[in-house]
Amino acid sequence: MAEIKVKSRYRIKAILLVVVLSFTSISSASDEDEDLLKQAKKIFSPLPQVISSKKNPITPEKILLGKLLFYETRISIDGTVSCARCHPIGLYAADGLKKSIGNNCKLNPRNAPTLLNAAGQISAHWIGNRTDVEDQARQSVVGPPSFGMPSNEAVERRLKEINGYIEPFKRAFPEEADPITVENLAKAIGAFERTLVTPSRFDSFLKGDAAALTGQEKKGLNTYIGTGCIMCHSGPYAGGQTYQKFGIFEPYWNYTKSDPVDEGRFTVTKNEADKYAFKVPIHRNVAKTSPYFHDGSVDKLKDAVWIMGKIQLGKDLNKAQVEEIVTFLRSLTGEIPEDVLKVPILPSTD
Amino acid sequence: MAEIKVKSRYRIKAILLVVVLSFTSISSASDEDEDLLKQAKKIFSPLPQVISSKKNPITPEKILLGKLLFYETRISIDGTVSCARCHPIGLYAADGLKKSIGNNCKLNPRNAPTLLNAAGQISAHWIGNRTDVEDQARQSVVGPPSFGMPSNEAVERRLKEINGYIEPFKRAFPEEADPITVENLAKAIGAFERTLVTPSRFDSFLKGDAAALTGQEKKGLNTYIGTGCIMCHSGPYAGGQTYQKFGIFEPYWNYTKSDPVDEGRFTVTKNEADKYAFKVPIHRNVAKTSPYFHDGSVDKLKDAVWIMGKIQLGKDLNKAQVEEIVTFLRSLTGEIPEDVLKVPILPSTD
Repeated sequence: MAEIKVKSRYRIKAILLVVVLSFTSISSASDEDEDLLKQAKKIFSPLPQVISSKKNPITPEKILLGKLLFYETRISIDGTVSCARCHPIGLYAADGLKKSIGNNCKLNPRNAPTLLNAAGQISAHWIGNRTDVEDQARQSVVGPPSFGMPSNEAVERRLKEINGYIEPFKRAFPEEADPITVENLAKAIGAFERTLVTPSRFDSFLKGDAAALTGQEKKGLNTYIGTGCIMCHSGPYAGGQTYQKFGIFEPYWNYTKSDPVDEGRFTVTKNEADKYAFKVPIHRNVAKTSPYFHDGSVDKLKDAVWIMGKIQLGKDLNKAQVEEIVTFLRSLTGEIPEDVLKVPILPSTD
Repeated sequence: MAEIKVKSRYRIKAILLVVVLSFTSISSASDEDEDLLKQAKKIFSPLPQVISSKKNPITPEKILLGKLLFYETRISIDGTVSCARCHPIGLYAADGLKKSIGNNCKLNPRNAPTLLNAAGQISAHWIGNRTDVEDQARQSVVGPPSFGMPSNEAVERRLKEINGYIEPFKRAFPEEADPITVENLAKAIGAFERTLVTPSRFDSFLKGDAAALTGQEKKGLNTYIGTGCIMCHSGPYAGGQTYQKFGIFEPYWNYTKSDPVDEGRFTVTKNEADKYAFKVPIHRNVAKTSPYFHDGSVDKLKDAVWIMGKIQLGKDLNKAQVEEIVTFLRSLTGEIPEDVLKVPILPSTD
């Protein structure tokens, strides 16, 4: 266990609970439910309504502008890339590809994580090179594999050519004389992404409705807790709060057949302890965001769960355990807000 | 005029009206409006609610399935192409590119026409090689520059891998034992596209509300009629009913600077008379679907209008005339139905 870095308050609680759980005696069905609920409440918490930020206070005007920009392809070098390309809302804001394909067919180095419930994580993306969703948007527009624009100025020039953006930028940033900037684009997209929150039946359960999960799902939650998944997958998002070495008991590529091998967070920090470390992905909507892992190397959730048991927990989970965990994970599939499902009509040059 | 083929009843009416118009005396403002309305009613007609088809009767179940498939990238060879990629609804179902970019960065030979109000035209696309919207969908999935799939069977295999499609296909085609076919995919997408109808203030005008257009727009409509635009741009869609030689008075490429020169419908029929002929594009939403012409060679609507006057009508339209026509064309920008603006949640393999 020593090599796992503890970075979050959820971690400590979770470890204590695994210990406590082993000594809990099982009595009546209803008591069981109550116990499970009590434990779950200590490990997880319900999703917030929106994921707020002190640095980027959310306003309706920013959300509106951010939603326009989320679908905007005209600010990419070849006119085909928008945020929605790699994060289509209808596919739970992931794209189903192993690695996303950006402008001029450039392959992104890693799998596109879902943007649903993404804003509350320790950082955006896999290796900690994007501090938050705003930073992710900011870096994407000039990043070679995504939008591929040569500079912030080039993005701003494109935006200024589309007359219809003048008003939405002014309304979102009323105190600025010249609000059409990449900085503000990032804030607006960030504000929109902070509304991409998808409560599920699991949230109703956490709020006290023990009947919100089926018996099978509760059994699965028990297994999820008991086998130790919660050591990393805890908190409101069931993950997203720490970086962990992928492959504690064995190298990950032995199981994922990853090629090339990705050194993960080490490529950012050059710290030996970060070799093969990745941000723990969240489990919200995980059943809908195949393929899995940083390189999308595994297609099936059940295979991903078994591999995680093997190389993170040193456990050879049996078929029943894997199925139980998968059943619980499906209960984390949430509702995408109606507003979010509506495509905006984009500003025109007209 | 001899080289223009008359293919539609709207054409004949339109030519007669241009003649009649020249002799119409102008009296009071209200009489003027009444006259204009009377003429307009003979040239144009309001949009239908949906664009029906005897070959492909529309059902709610087909529309629902068609909408899913419209957003489906997983049936393209590289997983990045869906109908919505080249026809994003938020950009009025066109993509703003000169020529669309399909799978593996392949360039499509022509500009992506809007899919709004597309189903009622003489054919789909520019040169008459796609008989209708269903045929367009059918040919796109295996066409090299768009989805790029090697065969219908390959598309069907991909669809069958996504469990969530079984039920929607069954519901849309309840009498078929094995409904997951490209033929049915085309019918479903066609049914959805037949609902992409965008009424505008011009329809209210045509239905008798003379005040639905502003004075400037009515002036523009007068110019649109009087200069002869209506010889080709008539009917419910203001175009889309005939093929016409592009460049009657002068070669089009002298003005559009097109390179390469596209021989248009000739490439389909090998009939000399079809050289440089293209389907007359519709003017519904034309102000929102820049760039213009079959190769997107012209960015600004006012430039496109001036070029059309020059090479189709042999008229050097002055600045005021061009502006008047553009003002009228803007009144053809319609409302995209609420239902259409909602992104569907796609079926999963889960």
